Amino acid sequence: MFDLVIANGTLVTAEAMFRADVGIREGRIAAWGRGLTGRQTLDAAGKWVLPGAVDEHVHLEMPVGEFASSDDFYSGTVAAACGGTTAIVDFVEARPGERLLDALAARRAKAEGKAVIDYGLHMTLSSADEETLAQVPACIEAGTASFKLYMTYALRLDDGGLLRALAALRAHGGRALVHAENHQAIAYLVAQALAKGRTGPENHPLTRPARMEAEAIHRLLALASVVDAPLVLAHLSCAQGLEEVRRARARGQTVWVETCPQYLLLDEAEYRRPGFEGAKFVMAPPLRTAADRAALWAGLAAGEIQTVATDHCPFFYETQKVRGKDDFSRIPGGAPGIETRLTLLYTHGVRAGRLTPQRWVEICCTEPARRFGLAPRKGTLAVGADADVVIFDPARRVQLSYRTLHQNVDYCPYEGWEVEGYPVTVLSRGEVIVREGEFAGAAGRGRFLPTAPLYKRL
Amino acid sequence: MFDLVIANGTLVTAEAMFRADVGIREGRIAAWGRGLTGRQTLDAAGKWVLPGAVDEHVHLEMPVGEFASSDDFYSGTVAAACGGTTAIVDFVEARPGERLLDALAARRAKAEGKAVIDYGLHMTLSSADEETLAQVPACIEAGTASFKLYMTYALRLDDGGLLRALAALRAHGGRALVHAENHQAIAYLVAQALAKGRTGPENHPLTRPARMEAEAIHRLLALASVVDAPLVLAHLSCAQGLEEVRRARARGQTVWVETCPQYLLLDEAEYRRPGFEGAKFVMAPPLRTAADRAALWAGLAAGEIQTVATDHCPFFYETQKVRGKDDFSRIPGGAPGIETRLTLLYTHGVRAGRLTPQRWVEICCTEPARRFGLAPRKGTLAVGADADVVIFDPARRVQLSYRTLHQNVDYCPYEGWEVEGYPVTVLSRGEVIVREGEFAGAAGRGRFLPTAPLYKRL
Amino acid sequence: MFDLVIANGTLVTAEAMFRADVGIREGRIAAWGRGLTGRQTLDAAGKWVLPGAVDEHVHLEMPVGEFASSDDFYSGTVAAACGGTTAIVDFVEARPGERLLDALAARRAKAEGKAVIDYGLHMTLSSADEETLAQVPACIEAGTASFKLYMTYALRLDDGGLLRALAALRAHGGRALVHAENHQAIAYLVAQALAKGRTGPENHPLTRPARMEAEAIHRLLALASVVDAPLVLAHLSCAQGLEEVRRARARGQTVWVETCPQYLLLDEAEYRRPGFEGAKFVMAPPLRTAADRAALWAGLAAGEIQTVATDHCPFFYETQKVRGKDDFSRIPGGAPGIETRLTLLYTHGVRAGRLTPQRWVEICCTEPARRFGLAPRKGTLAVGADADVVIFDPARRVQLSYRTLHQNVDYCPYEGWEVEGYPVTVLSRGEVIVREGEFAGAAGRGRFLPTAPLYKRL
Amino acid sequence: MFDLVIANGTLVTAEAMFRADVGIREGRIAAWGRGLTGRQTLDAAGKWVLPGAVDEHVHLEMPVGEFASSDDFYSGTVAAACGGTTAIVDFVEARPGERLLDALAARRAKAEGKAVIDYGLHMTLSSADEETLAQVPACIEAGTASFKLYMTYALRLDDGGLLRALAALRAHGGRALVHAENHQAIAYLVAQALAKGRTGPENHPLTRPARMEAEAIHRLLALASVVDAPLVLAHLSCAQGLEEVRRARARGQTVWVETCPQYLLLDEAEYRRPGFEGAKFVMAPPLRTAADRAALWAGLAAGEIQTVATDHCPFFYETQKVRGKDDFSRIPGGAPGIETRLTLLYTHGVRAGRLTPQRWVEICCTEPARRFGLAPRKGTLAVGADADVVIFDPARRVQLSYRTLHQNVDYCPYEGWEVEGYPVTVLSRGEVIVREGEFAGAAGRGRFLPTAPLYKRL
Repeated sequence: MFDLVIANGTLVTAEAMFRADVGIREGRIAAWGRGLTGRQTLDAAGKWVLPGAVDEHVHLEMPVGEFASSDDFYSGTVAAACGGTTAIVDFVEARPGERLLDALAARRAKAEGKAVIDYGLHMTLSSADEETLAQVPACIEAGTASFKLYMTYALRLDDGGLLRALAALRAHGGRALVHAENHQAIAYLVAQALAKGRTGPENHPLTRPARMEAEAIHRLLALASVVDAPLVLAHLSCAQGLEEVRRARARGQTVWVETCPQYLLLDEAEYRRPGFEGAKFVMAPPLRTAADRAALWAGLAAGEIQTVATDHCPFFYETQKVRGKDDFSRIPGGAPGIETRLTLLYTHGVRAGRLTPQRWVEICCTEPARRFGLAPRKGTLAVGADADVVIFDPARRVQLSYRTLHQNVDYCPYEGWEVEGYPVTVLSRGEVIVREGEFAGAAGRGRFLPTAPLYKRL
Repeated sequence: MFDLVIANGTLVTAEAMFRADVGIREGRIAAWGRGLTGRQTLDAAGKWVLPGAVDEHVHLEMPVGEFASSDDFYSGTVAAACGGTTAIVDFVEARPGERLLDALAARRAKAEGKAVIDYGLHMTLSSADEETLAQVPACIEAGTASFKLYMTYALRLDDGGLLRALAALRAHGGRALVHAENHQAIAYLVAQALAKGRTGPENHPLTRPARMEAEAIHRLLALASVVDAPLVLAHLSCAQGLEEVRRARARGQTVWVETCPQYLLLDEAEYRRPGFEGAKFVMAPPLRTAADRAALWAGLAAGEIQTVATDHCPFFYETQKVRGKDDFSRIPGGAPGIETRLTLLYTHGVRAGRLTPQRWVEICCTEPARRFGLAPRKGTLAVGADADVVIFDPARRVQLSYRTLHQNVDYCPYEGWEVEGYPVTVLSRGEVIVREGEFAGAAGRGRFLPTAPLYKRL
Repeated sequence: MFDLVIANGTLVTAEAMFRADVGIREGRIAAWGRGLTGRQTLDAAGKWVLPGAVDEHVHLEMPVGEFASSDDFYSGTVAAACGGTTAIVDFVEARPGERLLDALAARRAKAEGKAVIDYGLHMTLSSADEETLAQVPACIEAGTASFKLYMTYALRLDDGGLLRALAALRAHGGRALVHAENHQAIAYLVAQALAKGRTGPENHPLTRPARMEAEAIHRLLALASVVDAPLVLAHLSCAQGLEEVRRARARGQTVWVETCPQYLLLDEAEYRRPGFEGAKFVMAPPLRTAADRAALWAGLAAGEIQTVATDHCPFFYETQKVRGKDDFSRIPGGAPGIETRLTLLYTHGVRAGRLTPQRWVEICCTEPARRFGLAPRKGTLAVGADADVVIFDPARRVQLSYRTLHQNVDYCPYEGWEVEGYPVTVLSRGEVIVREGEFAGAAGRGRFLPTAPLYKRL
Repeated sequence: MFDLVIANGTLVTAEAMFRADVGIREGRIAAWGRGLTGRQTLDAAGKWVLPGAVDEHVHLEMPVGEFASSDDFYSGTVAAACGGTTAIVDFVEARPGERLLDALAARRAKAEGKAVIDYGLHMTLSSADEETLAQVPACIEAGTASFKLYMTYALRLDDGGLLRALAALRAHGGRALVHAENHQAIAYLVAQALAKGRTGPENHPLTRPARMEAEAIHRLLALASVVDAPLVLAHLSCAQGLEEVRRARARGQTVWVETCPQYLLLDEAEYRRPGFEGAKFVMAPPLRTAADRAALWAGLAAGEIQTVATDHCPFFYETQKVRGKDDFSRIPGGAPGIETRLTLLYTHGVRAGRLTPQRWVEICCTEPARRFGLAPRKGTLAVGADADVVIFDPARRVQLSYRTLHQNVDYCPYEGWEVEGYPVTVLSRGEVIVREGEFAGAAGRGRFLPTAPLYKRL
């Protein structure tokens, strides 16, 4: 007798797709079988049953200049849950001089009482001095075993810093997630554009060319080879960057790649929208070309790209994005996406014949958990895993709109798009938190999710 | 109440690794859980429980010139089972003029009464004329949905034939498995060597250079791009060939890659063994360099290579290989391996830190089944799958020797090697066929395993 | 006292550009200097003085099916001369069974009494059997040290033939010029197109895709690596092919590349001309994309491509091309170009800033002579060289038209194009054969030009 | 009647090789011909006559830390002349705060009264601020049209500086010569080595890995693409770097490449010499592997590498190199070579069959002059060029030793090597300055050689 049985559904895992009931006990997956009986039953006949999706890359209430991203840990996790995501990994950014563990505690305090799903945290290393790196083992100990490194922004590390940081992570089993763009080239191009009076959002992609993302990737991988360090490349946006990844692998290096729905589904044409509307798509790296989109889809299908995260970082168009009206470089960078990943990848991946259902689950659920030390608790329906489960209706049609989505922001990059296939019921640790598409959980029920380090043997 | 429960083991699937019992009913996986009860119980405490391995590429009692490979469907499948393999895919080769379905029937008749595990069959297309290709749909209908194409040997297709065959398979959802080497370059080099009196087995690799395998792969993929056909590349042996695969993927093509344990573990040094001993390693493509081995391991880990099959095709050294004593080109090509794949990949993959246990299972079990249309019946422990299960002792040490292995041949390429981790109990459709390492099944219990075509959506 | 002095011009050589007079004695360059005096003087003030251009790849009165190309050795060499070309290399094609030297004699007899400039001949090897290859040394002895190999057409060699031929040429110092396209892929695609009723000339490029030219190049270079043979790649048309060349060089191979003005200046848009006009551009390989054109220009500038030849092979549109009206595969393949190379490369190369004047001379004059064993007699103004000289007016504007050009054909691929810079006076062995743009020489004055073999040292 | 005639020699130019006399008048090449008569005659029968070699990259009396390189403008240029080099390009390095033109004047003052051959100067841009870049046009005006940029050392520019500098040079036609190595990776690796007590010269190559030279090249070329700037890559040492060059060319970029004799002829084995002897070979980039050497030779032959310069920068082993006895990073970096380039390239290039005589002249004489705006005055025997001429005996055998060479340093990297082919007579502006291998000129006769900018059209 289980606490709860999800009955009659088609299980879709990274590995297989088959009819089975799932038995849940004490918030965990307890059994697969047929004819299981529980105190409660959710009928999933005609539906797919998947592990809750894992979003390894989100920014909730993240301070950026004068603003913070517009979803806080409550609205953001509600939106995530409604979209079928039951675990996220957000970021800690210590202030200059602040101890990393203090920053971690502060960040956890922000989430507490708000988060409705479980959340992990990447520790940002915005310095790679001895004192900072000495704190890496304690961070890992404290459940923050993955670290964000930036090659651009004020938070960036220079090449020496990258080497020291990657070496330290390698030594302690820390995981690295790296934002790769060439900072100085961007700064140069932005200055050039502004000097010529080119101030509109259409200049955003022109000042962050794909070649300079590929450059940063090549450099990063060369540096990583010097200290024999594996890493995850964040939000790959372009074919040229993927080519650098292929070359590093051909040299024997270990590198995993993340991309995002926006790079698969949107392209630079968006920046040419009338008026200031292009600002809605200002993010870094920027949207690229249709050819880049095709290359990313092919890379996903072939296994060259391992995960799809959202880099969710919304700002209100009317009140926040507008700040860059006279200077595109002041537009707060980022866009919403935490709620729409699973359905968009299903519609344009599975339905469109680019991905098998299993590969879709692997990309959105299983592999992100593996990649960031959340497996086997998250991302899988294996016995013993947290009962984070999505009941997905592969036939439900929904028209996406910021008006109906739960993200706290006044636009949706996919406004008006029709998707086919949508989460209907979502469980977190055995508890139904989304019922018929609407949030049914409680604020603050989400728990901090420690991430496990890489093993020595990599 | 299940027919049988495998209790207390650690399940290892392509996706996860976790403690669970497995319940079996009517020869199929019926449940996962804890504390399951059955009429019979196998205790797997301290052991790993995996899906039976699938070997997509074996040649049993295959006629080659005057000989046939020395394992027949009985000894070969017994050896497979003892090594943890519960499904194989062998080959049908029609004689000139013979209808493909007649050849299929004849081949199935050979296996009947002998095979102890389930077996599928690839249909060899040694001609691509209209009449032959017209039989493709019937072959698929008859459960032979995968097709072997050769670019060398008498069975080879020329470029026009490859185009016609790939196009026909594409049209009907047939799967292609291709042996890629440049036939005429080999013929030229062999003739040159013999003309110069170079007759020993050390000439074998020199006359089949990696560059000409890579050439054939490049050509094959170019041809495939013309007809937009996916394919599986058989037994990749070299880094140069893998580079061509990478380039095709960068152009957006779909290609999957198989390699074999011998290309991962052995290299050309074997051909320089004293006397005629190099003949034991005469196979095509030949063993390559240590650098090639490293590249294949890296490709496996990175997901660039999807499966590891054996290309098992043994010949007795003393009575068969010896036929090429005065002319290396007459040495029957092939080597044994059907029994040692799982343990070798565990020892040198998992133990050596190159593969996670999940990736090992994916490579040896799950992906071969998927790739050749045997999923979800084989290669997975999903509910509803055939109860083909391996109980694997990750700590058992065994010294490999042809004297103790079950392969019907007088040598082992890995003679004397110590492996760590070995199958102890093997089930096929719920029946224990290997107990404590020894075969416990019955001749002829294996069934023909239809392979499913690729879906239209590829 | 020289026989003739070209005074006051600016010499342009592959190496430098400078003011000097050129003294000619007994048909050869005798001196450079200032204030030279001769029995006759040609004033070149304001003009450029270059070595006569060398066209390494032309087909005059070449039998193709029922037709022959429309320029014979008279009209063709007159056109060449008027365009600034003072030496050509045409082809010998033995009939099946005919001895190569007999074919050479027959071909020389055709030219005799007609050719107005010196001409060499490539020997076509349409077979690579022992008997044919045994004739290679005699061909070299007879002054035909370069050999054409085809990978398509009835004349083609298969991979074994290519290996044997390249090895024989390597052994004797013969030079190889190779047409690389995949024959069977073309045959397949043509048959497919015709079967679907697609019969117009726009199908020509679709049935000879760039990928299959690149495939043939890759294969050719792989085969050449097996026998360590250098070669010249004929009429490269596409970026993908150039990429294969780069890769072979990175592996240490020696390969030189020829392209043609049409691949630099025209593209596949021509095949979409209304009516049957696309037929004018039917040649092999076909015209490619604008991106390919850009890649070829860059390759020329960077030295990756060594020579530009014309592959001149004209057919009358109204009476010959029209033969393929209902079947594009029957359109005689080839186009005129022998007269327009120098001016087109000047206009679109030098004037457009893509090439220095020296590089232009190197590409059109010096390197073709070097590449095919005509140096130092041809292609240079060095002392002792044949006094083949072009006085070129860098400012003369001409509108190209088949009506005014000397090529014997009823169209010009560049009809109506305005060029800037044109040959005004042309000397062959010290004799003025073009004066003010009009032919002033005599039929039959051209002599057979023996080509020298490659030295052992390659 | 010429001032001087070099009679009966075989002229070797970048273009051709032929018998001719050379007439010299007023220090310039006035004529080529046969039977020329002059007031004086040098008989070159049996000898080769070439343009004086041009060494585009030397460091004479260059301050490096507490030392200066040991050859001053007198000894260094005497050595150059004795080796057949008649023009060099050295460097100006402004002190912090010093105006570039002041630094140029100071540097010219150093050379004055000492230099025995003509010399140009590259201006080092160790800053790319507005004030510095504003001086670029004046430098060009003053005859210093080429600029050295460093990616390592204290003089280095960061990525932003490279962009600004390349853009400024592009705008004004300045030429860029760039030292590409990743500074921070080197610093990291040096610190790591020293921290582990690894202090010997064998650590030098380990701390400057080829991958990080290739990284810098890739980055440099990516930056150059952003501002559409051409450049010359200094002293390429490795195959991985050449691969990045090839890729940039495939993307359509213009980049020229320089290598040095030491990278062609020596390899990392030198660092493993007993005792401290490896210090003799400490230079940056370091010597690489035998495979790298082969790749550079192939690149030179194929035209992928355009010039060979020496990077001559000698330090006395006994008194200067020794400074790094306890810390390899303090060994003054650089080695002698100004005198041995022509003969080494002849012996190992021409004699060894890797280069034609013409290509040798192109690499050592013609192209360096072209590349740095010294053509057509230097690097050619064209009429009007400076009569800088080498009479080269292709058969003379010499055993290299620092005892007999004119370089002011106590060792020779090629000590004891036998070369075949040596300059016997050298003329500078028509004056014999080396006679029978011994210097016969006067200190201070060398003149400052203005370098011309690139034209707009590139």
